Amino acid sequence: VNMWINGVEAREISGDDRGLCYGDGLFETMRLRNGVIAHLARHLARLRAGCERLALQRVDLAQITGEITAAAATRADGVLKLIVTRGSGPRGYRPSGAENPTRIVTWQPARTADAAIAVAGVRARHCTTPANENTALAGVKHLNRLDSVLARSEWTDPEIAEGLMSDSRGCIIGGTMSNVFAVRHQTLLTPLLDRCGVSGIMRGLVIESARAAGIATEERNLAREDLAAADELFFTNAVLGIWPVCALESRDYPIGPTTRTLQRLLGAQA
Amino acid sequence: VNMWINGVEAREISGDDRGLCYGDGLFETMRLRNGVIAHLARHLARLRAGCERLALQRVDLAQITGEITAAAATRADGVLKLIVTRGSGPRGYRPSGAENPTRIVTWQPARTADAAIAVAGVRARHCTTPANENTALAGVKHLNRLDSVLARSEWTDPEIAEGLMSDSRGCIIGGTMSNVFAVRHQTLLTPLLDRCGVSGIMRGLVIESARAAGIATEERNLAREDLAAADELFFTNAVLGIWPVCALESRDYPIGPTTRTLQRLLGAQA
Repeated sequence: VNMWINGVEAREISGDDRGLCYGDGLFETMRLRNGVIAHLARHLARLRAGCERLALQRVDLAQITGEITAAAATRADGVLKLIVTRGSGPRGYRPSGAENPTRIVTWQPARTADAAIAVAGVRARHCTTPANENTALAGVKHLNRLDSVLARSEWTDPEIAEGLMSDSRGCIIGGTMSNVFAVRHQTLLTPLLDRCGVSGIMRGLVIESARAAGIATEERNLAREDLAAADELFFTNAVLGIWPVCALESRDYPIGPTTRTLQRLLGAQA
Repeated sequence: VNMWINGVEAREISGDDRGLCYGDGLFETMRLRNGVIAHLARHLARLRAGCERLALQRVDLAQITGEITAAAATRADGVLKLIVTRGSGPRGYRPSGAENPTRIVTWQPARTADAAIAVAGVRARHCTTPANENTALAGVKHLNRLDSVLARSEWTDPEIAEGLMSDSRGCIIGGTMSNVFAVRHQTLLTPLLDRCGVSGIMRGLVIESARAAGIATEERNLAREDLAAADELFFTNAVLGIWPVCALESRDYPIGPTTRTLQRLLGAQA
């Protein structure tokens, strides 16, 4: 079995679930390694913050923790995805407040190539699909992800692992499924996510680890030119860890000392 | 029975449907009156345009027409909602292209108050939740509707029927579930939807009817001040028709001659 709905093995949800009708919900994608869910506390903290942003009031984090832990106990390794929606309700955008949240946990195997990628790096491109801009939703890992779907549909070349999305002002936001970091003049730079994007678990961990190690770290607006002028680039994602970028469009990048230091600091976590 | 999935009576969809996971799909909400689906050809044309925007390649409009017509044949009046998603697939934003689209048709009764509202008008307010901005998605009636959910959650007063949403630049986009029109100096004005918003069926019909009747009509950026200075305001929606605005925030509006002319021109259609 690979799917559990509201704590029991199941495959289907109600056709009037607000997660389907409006994308009215949140998700977390977690790495399961040797029976342990990596960074579970951080995933739950982000879920709690997302519930506050969307006013999902009846989400029971203890119940959810039990449900994902039970799913994890059936496997040693892989990827666990949790979706929490506001639940079913009558037609209309306004929630009644009486909806019962729907929880969906799915398991998938991890991809075997990831360890090699962490060493060798990936090729990346720029996407033309803009990132959704909305200060009320920025940073939240919600179910409204059509911008990432369209951006990820822009290329089929299997040699390109990730695409960078920008906002309407030309500010880099992140990869279609990851956050992005640049290193320039020994400073670690990553986009501000106050208007767009998802505040990634690995992004937060990298920022904290870098600062703890004395690496100057800034969240700020970055343009394509800032990435072109960078010494190092990497993507982060809770499942994939740190993905060094060896090429972005026509420019090659070395996999530099800051990237390798952060990979070493995070060790098996990333 | 009130729900049909892929043409058969059913209540549930797969938990890995991309409509749920990413909001990767479209919807149409249609008025059924005396056994006839109002503006069916326009709904289907918008659906086709939305499929092109989202690259939903395997949607069969003839099949969908058959499914909604069959659902309509079980009732005389009410509201039919169609959701079309890209279908189920493995985890990951990129569609494989091999997904089979999921079709969900639901029926609900129409609200009895609507005819009275068309005469008496509604009270409205401004929302603080901004409208999603994305040129790649603007105008499309897709399933990423969290901005409308949050905006519609801002008030509970049953005397307020609709809230106006604006973009980050302060441009009015529309109501949470409707488009908006203003009349000033005998000119009909409605927001440009090149960055945000949904291109409504009734909006299109009102623009065409107004122009055919010799009423000057412009799509352009409108600020709150433009609405405050307007002579008349109304909302449009394929199910509700034309809703005159009798008050927006602290200002009262007359239900003026242009609104009444358009209601008369559209007759039972609006």
